[in-house]
Amino acid sequence: MTTENHLHDDLVLARIADVLETRLPARGGDSSSSYVAKLFAKGPDAALKKIGEEATELVMAVKDGAKDRMVSETADLWFHCLVTLVEHGIRPEQVLAELARREGVSGLIEKASRQT
Amino acid sequence: MTTENHLHDDLVLARIADVLETRLPARGGDSSSSYVAKLFAKGPDAALKKIGEEATELVMAVKDGAKDRMVSETADLWFHCLVTLVEHGIRPEQVLAELARREGVSGLIEKASRQT
Amino acid sequence: MTTENHLHDDLVLARIADVLETRLPARGGDSSSSYVAKLFAKGPDAALKKIGEEATELVMAVKDGAKDRMVSETADLWFHCLVTLVEHGIRPEQVLAELARREGVSGLIEKASRQT
Amino acid sequence: MTTENHLHDDLVLARIADVLETRLPARGGDSSSSYVAKLFAKGPDAALKKIGEEATELVMAVKDGAKDRMVSETADLWFHCLVTLVEHGIRPEQVLAELARREGVSGLIEKASRQT
Repeated sequence: MTTENHLHDDLVLARIADVLETRLPARGGDSSSSYVAKLFAKGPDAALKKIGEEATELVMAVKDGAKDRMVSETADLWFHCLVTLVEHGIRPEQVLAELARREGVSGLIEKASRQT
Repeated sequence: MTTENHLHDDLVLARIADVLETRLPARGGDSSSSYVAKLFAKGPDAALKKIGEEATELVMAVKDGAKDRMVSETADLWFHCLVTLVEHGIRPEQVLAELARREGVSGLIEKASRQT
Repeated sequence: MTTENHLHDDLVLARIADVLETRLPARGGDSSSSYVAKLFAKGPDAALKKIGEEATELVMAVKDGAKDRMVSETADLWFHCLVTLVEHGIRPEQVLAELARREGVSGLIEKASRQT
Repeated sequence: MTTENHLHDDLVLARIADVLETRLPARGGDSSSSYVAKLFAKGPDAALKKIGEEATELVMAVKDGAKDRMVSETADLWFHCLVTLVEHGIRPEQVLAELARREGVSGLIEKASRQT
């Protein structure tokens, strides 16, 4: 996987959080038209239930050896984590920074930037 | 949050997956020295148990209104998702691509790159 | 709590399992009229998803200190465990026997029997 | 399964709760000698983490089609539910009464008693 590919994939979590923030009731999210605004309107427990449910579904997909579902269930799980984080004023970048700190990796794309 | 910050945070998941791949038994991961190599050596169920456990701990952190723990428990959960994904030959970029597709966001940082 | 009370409460799990068994597709359970027959008709994963969901809801009820919900969510969780057990030909008595063995307790109701 | 067997199995949950109550710190439970007293000493979150973990392990046992583990993982899950209930002053009989009410079954063993 080249650096170029990384560039395409990487801002996804932050951009989804940006979109989710616009769905917050305080930001005028319309619960009649958006799944997430509806989830927010139900209160914070709604996203937590989904986290428990999606974690279980990911475990089941792995036990089934179903790679497509592993991808889609992980996506479901991370998405509902983002919903919960945004609901509590937390950015995914904070989670990524914590992971980077722990694992001793850096997300810096200095070289990539220089290549442009 | 500026584009600059995004640049620092974003390659984290892919880089952690890169590191995790080097811990796989088939790649010579040393289960006596690395937490992840140890987890891999126990077989795929070990990471799945952690996913169930960490999802529950995230729910508890949210119910406690403990923002620091929300960040660290989400980090724990995503980390063990990465362990499971890597164990099954799946890259986090595939999950991010699925999320981007669903949510209609792009991770492209063309404009950001042009600004540098 | 008197022995008399125990008598009222105790055969509940076995009797629910008896009822659940009549809802199995092989036993002619009608998925148009019964929640459980519907759940069985969806296949074993349906009950498993509920177990993940109800375990999470129990955790949330406890974190909320909501005793009524602790009772009802535990009931939900145990009920869906019974559904899964019955689906796989396992009786709740086997689980209770395992618990009795581990904990060194007996379910014998000697005194009650002698009273009859 | 005869009525006789039911008699042996059924008081198990109540008797385990009786034992668990003696392990509560307020009742002098010795955290150096008992698993449960240790769990109580850690505070209520400890049992909740176990509920999340054991629910996941039950799901995994079912996906593996491993009937022995279905029995033992359900036992683990119900046991840690009992720990949580006792910790919050709730008796398993309350859960069983709720289940009996919902499912329209009775735990009464009147007829069985008369048969003996």
